[in-house]
Amino acid sequence: MEEANGVVKHVVLAKFKEETTSDQIDEIIKAFANLVTLIEPMKSFQWGKDVSIENLHQGFTHIFESTFEGTEGVAEYVVHPAHVEFANFFRCHLDEVLVIDYKPTFLRS
Amino acid sequence: MEEANGVVKHVVLAKFKEETTSDQIDEIIKAFANLVTLIEPMKSFQWGKDVSIENLHQGFTHIFESTFEGTEGVAEYVVHPAHVEFANFFRCHLDEVLVIDYKPTFLRS
Repeated sequence: MEEANGVVKHVVLAKFKEETTSDQIDEIIKAFANLVTLIEPMKSFQWGKDVSIENLHQGFTHIFESTFEGTEGVAEYVVHPAHVEFANFFRCHLDEVLVIDYKPTFLRS
Repeated sequence: MEEANGVVKHVVLAKFKEETTSDQIDEIIKAFANLVTLIEPMKSFQWGKDVSIENLHQGFTHIFESTFEGTEGVAEYVVHPAHVEFANFFRCHLDEVLVIDYKPTFLRS
């Protein structure tokens, strides 16, 4: 197995509040994606809705993954004004959130 | 934003039992990675330890991501004898587990 050089993946799981509408969720996703254009160390963004069949999602419905070059990049992102502004908006709509960062070690078939 | 054609990402977060040793965790990771060679629809595997700084990991310490071609691939994996055997072994060492599957929509800078 190889470790991808320096890359850190920042994974956010979200459970939205009951009163948050799907239009508001769409707005949040667009604002999240837009951070790539505003925050230099944020290199990519992807997201999706849970489609799992094992019933182990613990109520989380959305996942967001962004990549950074190194943990310093994540640290810069966390305090960046564009992220702080987005996070305040995002947080208003969250019932629960879970964040994991990791340096992926990978294997392909 | 584009949707990666047919790809499903299968994300597993784990919190191991206190009594599980780091050697046992290494053994679990090798066995998980080895499923790529045994289960045809499982296309790739990566994993990492949490290095997040926001203290929102909710006690989860490890993340495992595998990819599949379509949700049928995940369904085939879940019931595959090699996965069932691995999952029984993995579960013995788990304090908590969370699973999310998603079809990634992505954006690159």
